[in-house]
Amino acid sequence: MGKIIMEHGSGGRATGELIREIFESQFHSDVLSEMEDAAVVPGDGTIAMTTDSFVVTPLEFPGGDIGRLCICGTVNDLCMRGAVPKYITCGFILEEGADIDTLRRIVKSMAETADEAGVKIVAGDTKVIEGNGGIYINTAGVGFVPKGVDIKAKNAEDDDVIIVSGNVGDHHATVLSQRMGIKNTIVSDNAPLQEMVGKLIESKIPVHVLRDVTRGGLATVLKELALASGLRFDLFEEKLPVDPQVQSFCGLLGLDPLYMGNEGKLVAIVPKDYAVQALEVIRSCKYGENACMVGAVNIPEDETEEGALIMRTEIGGRRFLDILQGEGLPRIC
Amino acid sequence: MGKIIMEHGSGGRATGELIREIFESQFHSDVLSEMEDAAVVPGDGTIAMTTDSFVVTPLEFPGGDIGRLCICGTVNDLCMRGAVPKYITCGFILEEGADIDTLRRIVKSMAETADEAGVKIVAGDTKVIEGNGGIYINTAGVGFVPKGVDIKAKNAEDDDVIIVSGNVGDHHATVLSQRMGIKNTIVSDNAPLQEMVGKLIESKIPVHVLRDVTRGGLATVLKELALASGLRFDLFEEKLPVDPQVQSFCGLLGLDPLYMGNEGKLVAIVPKDYAVQALEVIRSCKYGENACMVGAVNIPEDETEEGALIMRTEIGGRRFLDILQGEGLPRIC
Repeated sequence: MGKIIMEHGSGGRATGELIREIFESQFHSDVLSEMEDAAVVPGDGTIAMTTDSFVVTPLEFPGGDIGRLCICGTVNDLCMRGAVPKYITCGFILEEGADIDTLRRIVKSMAETADEAGVKIVAGDTKVIEGNGGIYINTAGVGFVPKGVDIKAKNAEDDDVIIVSGNVGDHHATVLSQRMGIKNTIVSDNAPLQEMVGKLIESKIPVHVLRDVTRGGLATVLKELALASGLRFDLFEEKLPVDPQVQSFCGLLGLDPLYMGNEGKLVAIVPKDYAVQALEVIRSCKYGENACMVGAVNIPEDETEEGALIMRTEIGGRRFLDILQGEGLPRIC
Repeated sequence: MGKIIMEHGSGGRATGELIREIFESQFHSDVLSEMEDAAVVPGDGTIAMTTDSFVVTPLEFPGGDIGRLCICGTVNDLCMRGAVPKYITCGFILEEGADIDTLRRIVKSMAETADEAGVKIVAGDTKVIEGNGGIYINTAGVGFVPKGVDIKAKNAEDDDVIIVSGNVGDHHATVLSQRMGIKNTIVSDNAPLQEMVGKLIESKIPVHVLRDVTRGGLATVLKELALASGLRFDLFEEKLPVDPQVQSFCGLLGLDPLYMGNEGKLVAIVPKDYAVQALEVIRSCKYGENACMVGAVNIPEDETEEGALIMRTEIGGRRFLDILQGEGLPRIC
């Protein structure tokens, strides 16, 4: 179908054709086809809302693409509040020259991922700007929070354990490999986590905190959670799950997997007594087979330990970790 | 504070500073300050959802700016389904080099407009891309639809009247004037319409259709509504409210106000028996003083009239109008 031209953003006939041919053909939805600017859908009790924009290069990579990424990102942000993800809106900003076949594949991938995650795409918008063929996608989502569920960043407590749902750094290493033209078989972990979170909640484990491990990596996420709770988070270096190929990729480039982003991993913080059960539940899920207990939450022994994230090594060393500073790594999103 | 640099999008310290200094300082919100990726807010019954991206140049113009625009646009899309707008998410895509003082003004304007419209900004996201200092904003919104309200595009009926809430073309003419360096005192109509819609619904007028008159202008909007209903929409040329200054601006450039966008006008389609009451309600509202009845909905007399929008002139002429085709006008969004 060729390239995006400015006329595709006019709001007139060309915009209508683009929407019908590219978007509606994939996002089969009664709600979307109603020719309305706002979707009307059933609501229920307490709702969770989130938004995220996706500006990743390359648009397609082993294990995923920007379309799968944006659905997963929004679904996962909702899940991290214990919500059942329900509805997604998507806003496309297309640069003139964007490849329409690529756009078609991306949209197909969004539709498939939405199906997998059990969410409905209910509203959309398309704008065209000048530029060099870039495709940017914003997604926003709504989910319903089951009664009694209260999961948030500051809820970590003394004696909780920290579980990560699988290998860290995969997505980041995949995108970097693509950008740098390095040949390997590393695949992005790009995945929706509603099954995992749903099962944790169904199993009545009193989950204190959930957070997906994205930009900034595990260290940034855990440091933010430590700050939110004011407690001390201890991280055990030898427990960190890293794929051997990702590990050697990082070694080669001098990168630290702790600061590398994922797109299908979560951190769960639960009371110690539920650690084994939580680990079992997560490992029983499609994207949780490599889940590990990687750390613990403790009361700070002094002021310097308040909100601290401390890496403990096998030989007894301890190192304070901070959130990602500066660029740190070649950017992936 | 200078310019946006790539580091502002790293997800690390610089991102945190940008969010705190620019966004949180304006969007005073308990929900936003919780350091969560998804907001959790009360939900109720039937919800409306919408999204829109804003890519307008210039970022600031007489009567508004991209910040006021994005809040109004989302609020209005929700209102057009009869919903009471409640929650907004915003995603910023900032090009490297974007001016931070400008961003600050835009964010302030968003906060003020959200206050005016009675909505809460509950979640946000910021990404930085390479480029030339552009600022793009996506907003998504959620509103609650009162019981019994069912307003949608295809609900127009025979014998309905078509009301437009004020002068058409103002926003488009403002932005064009700015872009072309033409000096005049035309001001954008950029405004939130929740008061108007709320009063229409409270007054128990059985509103069939509401639609805000944005990209593509009144003609495009009415043609889309005619198509959705399959009926014939008649438009009376002499009734169209156009500001004299906008009219002469259009005359000068050979533009048609019918195809020019607004950002604070709506079309209301109501049964003829309620026309006077609806007009009174709309005129009593802050942004409705120039409301007019501009047309009527009728049963098509033959196939060519099904879904047709027909302009009727004072001297008995009739002209079929279509949606905006091609670029038509210099683009404003």
